[in-house]
Amino acid sequence: MPKFKGYFETKNLDPFTLEKAYEALKYERGTVGYYDLPSSSISLCADVKKSLLSSTVFFNTIAIVGIGGSSLGIKAIDRLLRSSTPHAKKIVYFENSDPISIAYEASRIEFAKTLFVVISKSGGTVETLSIFKYLIAKFDIDLKNSSQIVVVSDDGSILSQFSDHYGLKRFIIPSNVGGRFSVLSAVGVIPLVLAGFNVEGVLGGAKIFSEQFWARKEEHVLQKAAYYVSNAKVFPLNVLFSYSDTFEEFGKWVVQLWGESLGKRNTRGERVGLTPISLIGSVDQHSFLQLIIEGPLNKTVTFMHIEHSRDELMIPELSLPFLEKSDFVNGESFNTLINAQCKATMESVLQSGVSVDDITWDCIDEKSVGQMIMYYELLTSAAGALLEINTYDQPGVEHGKKILEGYFLNK
Amino acid sequence: MPKFKGYFETKNLDPFTLEKAYEALKYERGTVGYYDLPSSSISLCADVKKSLLSSTVFFNTIAIVGIGGSSLGIKAIDRLLRSSTPHAKKIVYFENSDPISIAYEASRIEFAKTLFVVISKSGGTVETLSIFKYLIAKFDIDLKNSSQIVVVSDDGSILSQFSDHYGLKRFIIPSNVGGRFSVLSAVGVIPLVLAGFNVEGVLGGAKIFSEQFWARKEEHVLQKAAYYVSNAKVFPLNVLFSYSDTFEEFGKWVVQLWGESLGKRNTRGERVGLTPISLIGSVDQHSFLQLIIEGPLNKTVTFMHIEHSRDELMIPELSLPFLEKSDFVNGESFNTLINAQCKATMESVLQSGVSVDDITWDCIDEKSVGQMIMYYELLTSAAGALLEINTYDQPGVEHGKKILEGYFLNK
Repeated sequence: MPKFKGYFETKNLDPFTLEKAYEALKYERGTVGYYDLPSSSISLCADVKKSLLSSTVFFNTIAIVGIGGSSLGIKAIDRLLRSSTPHAKKIVYFENSDPISIAYEASRIEFAKTLFVVISKSGGTVETLSIFKYLIAKFDIDLKNSSQIVVVSDDGSILSQFSDHYGLKRFIIPSNVGGRFSVLSAVGVIPLVLAGFNVEGVLGGAKIFSEQFWARKEEHVLQKAAYYVSNAKVFPLNVLFSYSDTFEEFGKWVVQLWGESLGKRNTRGERVGLTPISLIGSVDQHSFLQLIIEGPLNKTVTFMHIEHSRDELMIPELSLPFLEKSDFVNGESFNTLINAQCKATMESVLQSGVSVDDITWDCIDEKSVGQMIMYYELLTSAAGALLEINTYDQPGVEHGKKILEGYFLNK
Repeated sequence: MPKFKGYFETKNLDPFTLEKAYEALKYERGTVGYYDLPSSSISLCADVKKSLLSSTVFFNTIAIVGIGGSSLGIKAIDRLLRSSTPHAKKIVYFENSDPISIAYEASRIEFAKTLFVVISKSGGTVETLSIFKYLIAKFDIDLKNSSQIVVVSDDGSILSQFSDHYGLKRFIIPSNVGGRFSVLSAVGVIPLVLAGFNVEGVLGGAKIFSEQFWARKEEHVLQKAAYYVSNAKVFPLNVLFSYSDTFEEFGKWVVQLWGESLGKRNTRGERVGLTPISLIGSVDQHSFLQLIIEGPLNKTVTFMHIEHSRDELMIPELSLPFLEKSDFVNGESFNTLINAQCKATMESVLQSGVSVDDITWDCIDEKSVGQMIMYYELLTSAAGALLEINTYDQPGVEHGKKILEGYFLNK
């Protein structure tokens, strides 16, 4: 289990606040679907292996056609577990309506050896459908009963109806699981199992964390949510400073989860929300750190690092003339260096008066990934409950979609 | 020239503020080195071609060993111009002390065909020197007069002394050019010329913008800086929302430039600063946008998009059963779609009451890249002058480095 340590003051938090958050989550557990995924998705793993793996042996690449909640979580798990899953198949992502990216990704796949997984919760995402059409035309795909296309969508969505019309294999996203909370549903399970990742391990980790939380053994989740929400006006920014490049996509997943869930009008119509920022150490020590240390005290910072790396890459015992100043790390592993950088930076950030907490992963494995996914989902839900908002919708983005359609329909 | 359009109110800005910023920049122009780079680096391009290109024909890959200001700008230009410079050599980046990344990047180069460009302004960056040592040991590099190593550093730095000791080719970063303002110095010029990019074109663009600015023909730079600074307490967050994946690294470069330059204690010892956030459209419409539209009104947003794309990728005239809803973009180019998404999102963000401005690139070419680099540098300098800080130092990060050394030396 990752270790969680908060350096901010939680003694003054009203115990009633923690109870309120816990009870709110317990209450919504009956209707909000993601809480149940660590259990319910286990059988999905078995299903996929039984129904799809044998008929899809031909492919060496999975092409995800999806955006936002339909790609960020998959990318996060893919990146975190890639180096420890060397046999995993290549996954390419068709996300953005950017023509340069689409052309580039299309050039990276060999059509005959590619399985396309088309993912859209609503079924109507304009980027996803436009790119899908482009791929159909480019590769002259015969849709009828195609074994090269798998669809993941809400039951009854237009994409699901399309899928059934052509006899395509399809999987359902439970209607009460929101896009950004869907990584442990068919959205993540289907492509990641097909690629050869140990998804059961991820689900197992999520289940452990979930059970601990409901047993009131992870009270720090509620404490952190309560601290962040009660200080939202003082610290409107929450920084996640992760020490490893492999957290890049995980950080983007957290940004979507936190930003899109909490940036809302509350029950009294007031604009509330907390702004997430994802940084990577040590790189961003050479960029954003100065602002944290000497800029306005409007940020909390969560440091995240990995205690044990699988790659024991060493800094050689090499003393070079004039560069002896750097010899203090000679003979150390790069993992020791990056962890020491995390610790030293945390110490100096703490000393500058910033609210800090620290998450230590023992190592990057399936279990930890699952635990941390569930940790961030529960943290988001708890913060949402305390902000008195609907954590699971995104009404603010609909207007732009309408404007977009108007441009073309009124041409 | 990119088109700049602000939708926020600048009428009420004190004209004296604009004069103050302009005069401050004019004054510091004598001592701050980056202003002069568009002119002075032209001869550097010629030098590199003359002195290095012929002796380095052997290589097909450039390995940058550098972090922060010694890699972000190179990566930004590399990414923006890569698709229009198909003959450019591969560049790999050794930045982070992350062992997984170092091992991965090392696996991507063929030693005999690789030129290593080691970049550190101070010459003592621990990540850079540790990785450099690792590469020396791994590839058993014979340092003496090696034609495979080029060094870029401050004159007289320990890295420069090391370089001279071994007879390595080296280039100087002018001492009055700060790391995050150094992309148009030897830092960017050397590797990008060697890779085959048209760096003269970039410098030319920067020069044009600079001349326009000094001739008071780009007053919007001063207006925006004044608006941001005078509203820093109301809008502590400045979002750059760029519509194309190729802006990803440019966004990171802007984040470093803006965050590290402006997050400071001012002349009265007060903590000031503005927090930069880089988003990519349309992807982040499915993530961060909800927070912008309905969350606290504490952000300004700059939209950036490219009018003409080189990739005329089309959405086919394909109407699929049940998916007719998406037919409204049939027959359009993806570039038209992504631009319409930018415009529609901007419209809905504006309607939600957020301060917005819009930057339109005609296309991505060398000239525009240079212009936009100079635009952001001048904008940062102007904001720094108005915040009454030293825009060019980073005193806040030194303490963490001392703590780090202490861990190892006191072991």
